[in-house]
Amino acid sequence: MKKSHSIGIVGATGAVGKKFMQVLQEHRITPKNLRLFASQKSKGTKLAFNNHEYEVESLEESDFKGLDIVFFSAGTDISKDHCPRAVKAGAIVIDNSNAFRADPDVPLIVPEVNPHALKNHRGLIANPNCSTIQMLVAIAPIHRINPIKRIVVSTYQSVSGTGIEAIDILKRQAEAFLKAETFPGGVYPHQIAFNLFPHIDIFLENGLCREEEKMVFETRKILESDIPVCPTTVRVPVFFCHSEAVNLELTNPYELDQIRKLLSESPGITMMDTPEKNVYPTPIQCQDKDDVFIGRLRRDNSAKNALNMWVVSDNLRRGAATNGVLIYKYLAENNMI
Amino acid sequence: MKKSHSIGIVGATGAVGKKFMQVLQEHRITPKNLRLFASQKSKGTKLAFNNHEYEVESLEESDFKGLDIVFFSAGTDISKDHCPRAVKAGAIVIDNSNAFRADPDVPLIVPEVNPHALKNHRGLIANPNCSTIQMLVAIAPIHRINPIKRIVVSTYQSVSGTGIEAIDILKRQAEAFLKAETFPGGVYPHQIAFNLFPHIDIFLENGLCREEEKMVFETRKILESDIPVCPTTVRVPVFFCHSEAVNLELTNPYELDQIRKLLSESPGITMMDTPEKNVYPTPIQCQDKDDVFIGRLRRDNSAKNALNMWVVSDNLRRGAATNGVLIYKYLAENNMI
Repeated sequence: MKKSHSIGIVGATGAVGKKFMQVLQEHRITPKNLRLFASQKSKGTKLAFNNHEYEVESLEESDFKGLDIVFFSAGTDISKDHCPRAVKAGAIVIDNSNAFRADPDVPLIVPEVNPHALKNHRGLIANPNCSTIQMLVAIAPIHRINPIKRIVVSTYQSVSGTGIEAIDILKRQAEAFLKAETFPGGVYPHQIAFNLFPHIDIFLENGLCREEEKMVFETRKILESDIPVCPTTVRVPVFFCHSEAVNLELTNPYELDQIRKLLSESPGITMMDTPEKNVYPTPIQCQDKDDVFIGRLRRDNSAKNALNMWVVSDNLRRGAATNGVLIYKYLAENNMI
Repeated sequence: MKKSHSIGIVGATGAVGKKFMQVLQEHRITPKNLRLFASQKSKGTKLAFNNHEYEVESLEESDFKGLDIVFFSAGTDISKDHCPRAVKAGAIVIDNSNAFRADPDVPLIVPEVNPHALKNHRGLIANPNCSTIQMLVAIAPIHRINPIKRIVVSTYQSVSGTGIEAIDILKRQAEAFLKAETFPGGVYPHQIAFNLFPHIDIFLENGLCREEEKMVFETRKILESDIPVCPTTVRVPVFFCHSEAVNLELTNPYELDQIRKLLSESPGITMMDTPEKNVYPTPIQCQDKDDVFIGRLRRDNSAKNALNMWVVSDNLRRGAATNGVLIYKYLAENNMI
């Protein structure tokens, strides 16, 4: 990028906030200025970026003056309270929370899928939900040439999606379980070590949990289509990366080889699909990588023009920080900032 | 049961064999005689049953004389070699392996679903695959009143389905991971602790792994229908119980309350479905229970007459030993043995 910008990160001490700092460095982005924000209790914490130490500011006490871009990842309530303040101060905000995704005035962006929607932003841009991002990077190329008529998806979502405290509880529960010691509870309503449950975020009146509702709503908003989506979202005892078993019904007949070629040439996708040699993506293999990994691509003969695939990606990176950084890079490279 | 029988268990030292002994005792079955068989290396091992000790015999060296019923659970090759011998000796064989499931002369039985198929047995009866059994117990009552047109299912299968050595490797890998020690490999082609993969049994030329092929084939054989099934079978880091996200398309419109009532009154099913109170089945809760547990029952608006549910059951019990014992009890109670 030719120009450097003043960058703020809200929620800098959290799992996604730290990942934002890591991804910005890996993408060799040198901010003109960097400011880190978190809650009052983290004030003064020092975090390294490009070999410099930065002191975390209290979000409550700070203004956003002089910042060109601010990444928010501190939860929906914080975003609701503070994003408007940052926009008012002149920054472009890329918000990772659920606060504004449904707002018709806020573009919801996956850079490989709908960058055109960025042109109407009013200072606020929403980063989609992690499960939605990786599914859309995988299926959007197909949808462009052969419109998708229906999606049935089951997810296998890692605990890092909940935050640092969930990573810790999985570790501590697993340790206690293996030593047959008293079991630490907390974070989740059920044991997560060596267990799993079809429950992510709160349950809504329609019987879906909010993570499922997000996958339905956000898929439609981003693809600008009313594709029906049937998701089941499941938390599994994995630390990083979400996996998804995705079933698509397409409008027209297709050649499997053509879909395979299309996906392997699409940005942000790595094919890992030689099952007879045990090659398909697993969470451990995809950890700390930016791409969406696809395997088990196969024809589904149970419905007309149906197709199955297995999609794995790092939820903190591709599903959060990387997506935000890619939005920022798109804005910068297109002189939109 | 009025009459007691001479019972044999082949693979008595394995995960399913031990479960057969546990389930027989819990169902208060008192054999006239009990004989336990395993490989030569387990010969002489002593196992308790109803407060008596029984010595394991070498399968190779033994005959099956005098046995009324023999449960086989020692793998496909052992079954191929030795089941015919047991039938020839006059026993009824209930085989838990994949050896004879496709044989049109061998009934493939889930007692709550297709007990009528037992009447044509020729001495050999096949126990279906664990993932298929629990799905069929859950969906057969619906299929009877409103024929299922298509099934899309994603599984979350525990390591105990692979056997005792897989339970051990999950434990040892988890321990090593938590202590950051050198990682023990084996059993699976990939790490299973804090990881997962869409690969159960070997891959076939059609792109399915054999576990998926079993779910397709066995569902059709048991329901005596050519229902299209699209499965993705996934191994997860859980010790016991398989979970399944099941999507059904039915022939006719339905009332959700009616389906709920039907399932709650069907044999072998326990409804656990108050998601707003965090009540849905999880593997830990369903462990060591005989029933199939259903939660997250909900309308799926993404297709006509579609329905979603979450199904959990103990793969060693309901998916193996309990199903076998229920077949035996059905035979005994109907004077078929």
